[in-house]
Amino acid sequence: MERKERLDLLRKVLVGDDISAMIIPSTDPHFGEYIPDHYKVLEWLSGFTGEAATLVVTQKEAALWVDSRFFIQAAAQLEGSGIEMMKLKVEGTPSVADWLKARLDADDIVAMDEDLFPYSEYMEMTDSLAPLSPALIEDPFDKIWKDRPALQFNPVRYVDGTVSGESVSSKHSRLVERLKGPVPFAYVVTALDEVAWLCNIRGTDIEYNPLALSYAVVTEECITLFLRQEMLSREAMSSLLGQGVVLRDYEEFGRFLKALPKTCVRIFSSGKITARYFFAAMDNIHQHAPFRPYEPDPVAGGTLASMKAVKNSVELEGFRRAFVEDAKAMAKVIDWVRANAGSGITEHDVAMKLIECRSECPDYLGESFPAIVAFGANAALPHYMPPAQGSAVIRPEGFLLIDTGGQYTYGTTDTTRTIPLGPLTQRQKDDYTAVLKGMIDLSMAVFYKGMRGCLLDILARGPVMKAGRMYLHGTSHGIGHNLCVHEGPQSIRMEENRVPLQEGMVMSNEPAAYIEGEYGIRHENVITVVRRDGEFYGFETLTVLPIDLSPVNYDMLDSQERKWIEEFNSRCRTILG
Amino acid sequence: MERKERLDLLRKVLVGDDISAMIIPSTDPHFGEYIPDHYKVLEWLSGFTGEAATLVVTQKEAALWVDSRFFIQAAAQLEGSGIEMMKLKVEGTPSVADWLKARLDADDIVAMDEDLFPYSEYMEMTDSLAPLSPALIEDPFDKIWKDRPALQFNPVRYVDGTVSGESVSSKHSRLVERLKGPVPFAYVVTALDEVAWLCNIRGTDIEYNPLALSYAVVTEECITLFLRQEMLSREAMSSLLGQGVVLRDYEEFGRFLKALPKTCVRIFSSGKITARYFFAAMDNIHQHAPFRPYEPDPVAGGTLASMKAVKNSVELEGFRRAFVEDAKAMAKVIDWVRANAGSGITEHDVAMKLIECRSECPDYLGESFPAIVAFGANAALPHYMPPAQGSAVIRPEGFLLIDTGGQYTYGTTDTTRTIPLGPLTQRQKDDYTAVLKGMIDLSMAVFYKGMRGCLLDILARGPVMKAGRMYLHGTSHGIGHNLCVHEGPQSIRMEENRVPLQEGMVMSNEPAAYIEGEYGIRHENVITVVRRDGEFYGFETLTVLPIDLSPVNYDMLDSQERKWIEEFNSRCRTILG
Repeated sequence: MERKERLDLLRKVLVGDDISAMIIPSTDPHFGEYIPDHYKVLEWLSGFTGEAATLVVTQKEAALWVDSRFFIQAAAQLEGSGIEMMKLKVEGTPSVADWLKARLDADDIVAMDEDLFPYSEYMEMTDSLAPLSPALIEDPFDKIWKDRPALQFNPVRYVDGTVSGESVSSKHSRLVERLKGPVPFAYVVTALDEVAWLCNIRGTDIEYNPLALSYAVVTEECITLFLRQEMLSREAMSSLLGQGVVLRDYEEFGRFLKALPKTCVRIFSSGKITARYFFAAMDNIHQHAPFRPYEPDPVAGGTLASMKAVKNSVELEGFRRAFVEDAKAMAKVIDWVRANAGSGITEHDVAMKLIECRSECPDYLGESFPAIVAFGANAALPHYMPPAQGSAVIRPEGFLLIDTGGQYTYGTTDTTRTIPLGPLTQRQKDDYTAVLKGMIDLSMAVFYKGMRGCLLDILARGPVMKAGRMYLHGTSHGIGHNLCVHEGPQSIRMEENRVPLQEGMVMSNEPAAYIEGEYGIRHENVITVVRRDGEFYGFETLTVLPIDLSPVNYDMLDSQERKWIEEFNSRCRTILG
Repeated sequence: MERKERLDLLRKVLVGDDISAMIIPSTDPHFGEYIPDHYKVLEWLSGFTGEAATLVVTQKEAALWVDSRFFIQAAAQLEGSGIEMMKLKVEGTPSVADWLKARLDADDIVAMDEDLFPYSEYMEMTDSLAPLSPALIEDPFDKIWKDRPALQFNPVRYVDGTVSGESVSSKHSRLVERLKGPVPFAYVVTALDEVAWLCNIRGTDIEYNPLALSYAVVTEECITLFLRQEMLSREAMSSLLGQGVVLRDYEEFGRFLKALPKTCVRIFSSGKITARYFFAAMDNIHQHAPFRPYEPDPVAGGTLASMKAVKNSVELEGFRRAFVEDAKAMAKVIDWVRANAGSGITEHDVAMKLIECRSECPDYLGESFPAIVAFGANAALPHYMPPAQGSAVIRPEGFLLIDTGGQYTYGTTDTTRTIPLGPLTQRQKDDYTAVLKGMIDLSMAVFYKGMRGCLLDILARGPVMKAGRMYLHGTSHGIGHNLCVHEGPQSIRMEENRVPLQEGMVMSNEPAAYIEGEYGIRHENVITVVRRDGEFYGFETLTVLPIDLSPVNYDMLDSQERKWIEEFNSRCRTILG
């Protein structure tokens, strides 16, 4: 079926309900990085496969808002669809609301799917759409999308204390300690990785993120976990029940929210709860009940996300083990690339080889994100991913950038290496060294209790800027423990983020340099915050894959930097044997 | 007259007006760092001479809120006054509002001086005092303070283009460009240094800051300047009038605000306008007039403070000249200290000697702040100031820290040197080197367009932390051009400050290490932001006073740092001859 027909099917449904337009985001009700196929309605309608976009459909027109990462991709994928591309943050591009207001009459109704809009964004959109009337509607796509994939519920495994390092009941107690106040509370958890961490469960319902479709509501008395109970093994079920977890079906979540006691405080774990569930939770609230719509301030560490970000010693031991397994696989792949560059192997072949070599480890569960394998000028695009068909052939020259990670039962990895495959110019060597210097300097950081990530950013970015290069992304993101490879709430980047770095946080360390049309360099290790003397903190590096020092211009490194990288490589080689 | 009697005089006035208590801040109507004696009512009542405090007086009690900088001083100065010290940010200390609510009855009236409370703080206090009733009152002290110093209005000089580098009419045009919109505006300027910069005037009405008591209101048509016109020389007056400045008397400001056109937008230059003048400015406003109570976002550079912070080439040339003059004087003083340490000279003698040596320059106008001269353990207190009587005798041992600056007709200086006067321990040498390394690393910074100061802080603070030391103050403040030695809006410190660093900003660079009870080290140069290649920026150092390298542990410096400091010293010596 053509996209035009699909849009017209949607238009017919809308017009039947007196709706003039619909806004369709590229999200699901849990607002994670990857979404189940069932929710890929934007892709089904528009053909656009990028992970972030907003589609707006009126009776006559359709337009897709994308940011600069996707201009080229969207232009190609929208061709022939009749859908106009709208470039976000480009002068002259109207906002969704302004575009609609220019086309509709006052009081025309604009629909939003109650399951795909966070309450907060729905409220903002409502404000900016005025005088148009917003309407929250039920998902209309079941009616029109004939072969729509069903939501997949796969088996859910329970992670015991030997891997998680903390029981569900202990997590529950710690959370209650932070949340309890003079009146009862209901803490509503909608992010899948937060539910997974809290209940020590993992699934395969989402690509790359080992998550099960689920919700949780925490009260002082218990955790109520909403998921497909038949997907739990008998052992998993008895472990959960044995710790006082109350099980309910995934679909019961809304009804449960509506029945929350009149006077209890509703606290929403992340700012991203769907409009539907927000209104459900507020349905029965007493008009004088205290109301805390969102999370207590993450800076105070009072949130589930903050608790999850601080890894315990068992989790850290698991990370270390995962990095050893992952380094073995990556070392094998890198050797293979060196041996075969020039013999016709492609970027995509390398991505496949990574999966093959990782699969030799019995604890490997899959990739933690689609591997970035970028040869030559492709590496100048920070988010380049090799297509399955027609990816670049790797020649014995310049650099190959590989940014990849795996999910292991005991940890999640994320590593970038830039591999020299042939003769390099002095400038390439200097850039390689500048980025390395940045990575080393952040690794060696000493900082004070309570310091925020942005204060450390220039340690990594400074040497790159001194070389006249720049990267416009962050230096570091948090990493979950066999959970999402990108997690908050902390970060190291130029933008302000009020969350202080805390002992046990696991984060990437990935400065880079991008030279458009020529090459890209990124070195990425994973580090964890450790306490030093007194109020001082630093990092321990968890990654154990050596870094190729053949391109290094040693004049650019001081003696401590040289010592650090030599000891790092030597330690890696000892561990890998 | 005893303080008890003074407090009782105030109580009598208050009770006559049915007022139960009064809150008295340590401010004046311009909210600058130094205030005229006329406004030192808090000191007159309490005996406390520190620059920041809040006094609260009820019919029965009185209490003074101070922060940790002043705990010792306040305890000593309040002795025998019957005024209780309240320690800010110490657990268990009630807020002013809570303290009052615990003592007064609902609906009791709490007075605030309409001239000493910024409107915003008055509103906050009103909120937190509820159910007590706030009342703005006229200054009651003229009635009870018999020998109250009158406001001093001294001669005002006009700074011509050869020193300011920009005419008043050009500044007016640039400001109008930033402020003008679809409706007329009145931009109300109450900070003395903003008026001084805008109108190219300087005075001596405030200690250390070469300012004249004044206000200004800017419209698209003209600047109206409020000051004592008789204090202007004939030349100054004709220069101002010649550029379209309208002159009014200082006391006419309130009446002028009341008469602002009904429909013009009121914009207040800084968040600190007195409650009295805020209400005056809003007196006549049309209920539908657009209302922008405060400054346009300083991040957008649309403010007078932002314009003032970016120095033009003439101002920068003046700074360079001022730093040469100042280095000559300081070098002389440091030689004198070295020659006389051990012969009975005191910290206070050094402060006097600084004024004496600076006075040899005909363009010297006075100190830019009271000199910090701190010997041995005194230097571990960042804000130590030697008392006129009984300051420490300087012995030929350890370190002497001198942090001092001068006002010159063409610039303002601020320099800190830590002078070794005898044998040092290895730890002292290492700390000296660590602080120096921090100062050098910030001097050599390379950063990207739009970066904020907090992103650079760790360049200076990092080496200090690596040495296991810390300083809890900022690394850098802005410096005015023959204006306030502390000016905004930019800074380099750990706290978030959204203002980006811009070419031409002049700032201090002052990492430090404080070892309680032992010694303190601070090195301070002044730097200015310069543009490098493309979108990259860096700093030029304006200070030309050499740094003593005899304590340096060269193992702690890399080759670039060594080169930088050697070139710096050699350049200083060449310039100073």
